[in-house]
Amino acid sequence: MKIALLGGTGPQGRGLALRWARAGVEVVVGSRSAERGQAIAQELNDRLAGQGTPILGMSNEEAVEQSERFVVLAVPYVGHEPTLEWLKSCMAGKILIDVVVPLAGDDPKKVVMPPEGSATEEAQALLGPEIPVVGALHNVSAWVLDKIESPIHCDILICGNNKAAKDEASALIEKLGVKVYNAGLAVSARAIEHMTAILIRLNISKTTPFKHAGLKIWAEAGVE
Amino acid sequence: MKIALLGGTGPQGRGLALRWARAGVEVVVGSRSAERGQAIAQELNDRLAGQGTPILGMSNEEAVEQSERFVVLAVPYVGHEPTLEWLKSCMAGKILIDVVVPLAGDDPKKVVMPPEGSATEEAQALLGPEIPVVGALHNVSAWVLDKIESPIHCDILICGNNKAAKDEASALIEKLGVKVYNAGLAVSARAIEHMTAILIRLNISKTTPFKHAGLKIWAEAGVE
Repeated sequence: MKIALLGGTGPQGRGLALRWARAGVEVVVGSRSAERGQAIAQELNDRLAGQGTPILGMSNEEAVEQSERFVVLAVPYVGHEPTLEWLKSCMAGKILIDVVVPLAGDDPKKVVMPPEGSATEEAQALLGPEIPVVGALHNVSAWVLDKIESPIHCDILICGNNKAAKDEASALIEKLGVKVYNAGLAVSARAIEHMTAILIRLNISKTTPFKHAGLKIWAEAGVE
Repeated sequence: MKIALLGGTGPQGRGLALRWARAGVEVVVGSRSAERGQAIAQELNDRLAGQGTPILGMSNEEAVEQSERFVVLAVPYVGHEPTLEWLKSCMAGKILIDVVVPLAGDDPKKVVMPPEGSATEEAQALLGPEIPVVGALHNVSAWVLDKIESPIHCDILICGNNKAAKDEASALIEKLGVKVYNAGLAVSARAIEHMTAILIRLNISKTTPFKHAGLKIWAEAGVE
């Protein structure tokens, strides 16, 4: 199952590409230029050193064409709406996994939510009701993703209005070796995306002894 | 240091009263009727069986009068605005710790945020800029709080626009034996309060093996 990763040349996208490829997923990294896509794929394949499935690199448009089911959107927020505008005519039969967080351009400790309420809801509104959007992977730091020899210890909250699409996306995301929780409808992205800014605040703060925090759902298993 | 706990007769309030009292904090539980406040205090003191500081019970108004610094608001959301309306004239020199989550009346898996964006922001708007409001303790389940013999394993995110008030509130909340993180300004309550509805969704879901989940900040300590 070939997946397209748009913004796969950014830090979050690279880590996701590496981890999915290592898990045997065919990843096509998209970039604004085909050359840059190829160069990044080459670089990532060098890091994989033969482990997993080779990563392909091409233009964003070609990557989406290659995708058999999933298009993962991991561009900076400034590219969110422009990407979705051209994407909407190429998504028939596909599912969008939206990783984008609307961080404030001048302060990553803040979010500036679009009128729809969150990036995931904005994507769903722009793509229309026929194309399922699943918000996911907002709270994992790029640094954690990039440390491909270490497991990811934080949990993944996903949300979206299409249950079947969420189940499919869950299965793909679980290949990263993480626990995935269904956090409900797309409206939940208001909390989940915003949590990224809170985690960034904690990472930056001098009072915390860490820099790459994520979320974990804590619970006593089996309690009735 | 005597603190007032309004809505101390509800499940969340009871657990907080018990845990603070065990930690030596003088807790005054407020209720709409003084008799009910007294009855609950008696019941809670029976459970404490002499451990910690005895809990007092009285009317909400008397409890606030007794409070030396903190008023903790743990009423159901329907009582949030009405309580704040009378509270605003009694809060000079005090700090409000707002635990309230605007859960939808017909579905606790959803929040219905007030026009200000969150309950904490609503409280800050209603009390005015002179009275510091700290949002806190939204994500700990009443069941976890009530199990007073067990430590609380989840973390506490607090937020508010007054840094000094947050530091003071942090010290009080740490007496519960939890790790407290400063999640930023009051606007962060939009994410934190909403997370409560997401946790309730996970607790209710048949696909999760737990019923009382909380949040934990996960990070590798000491990473540079």
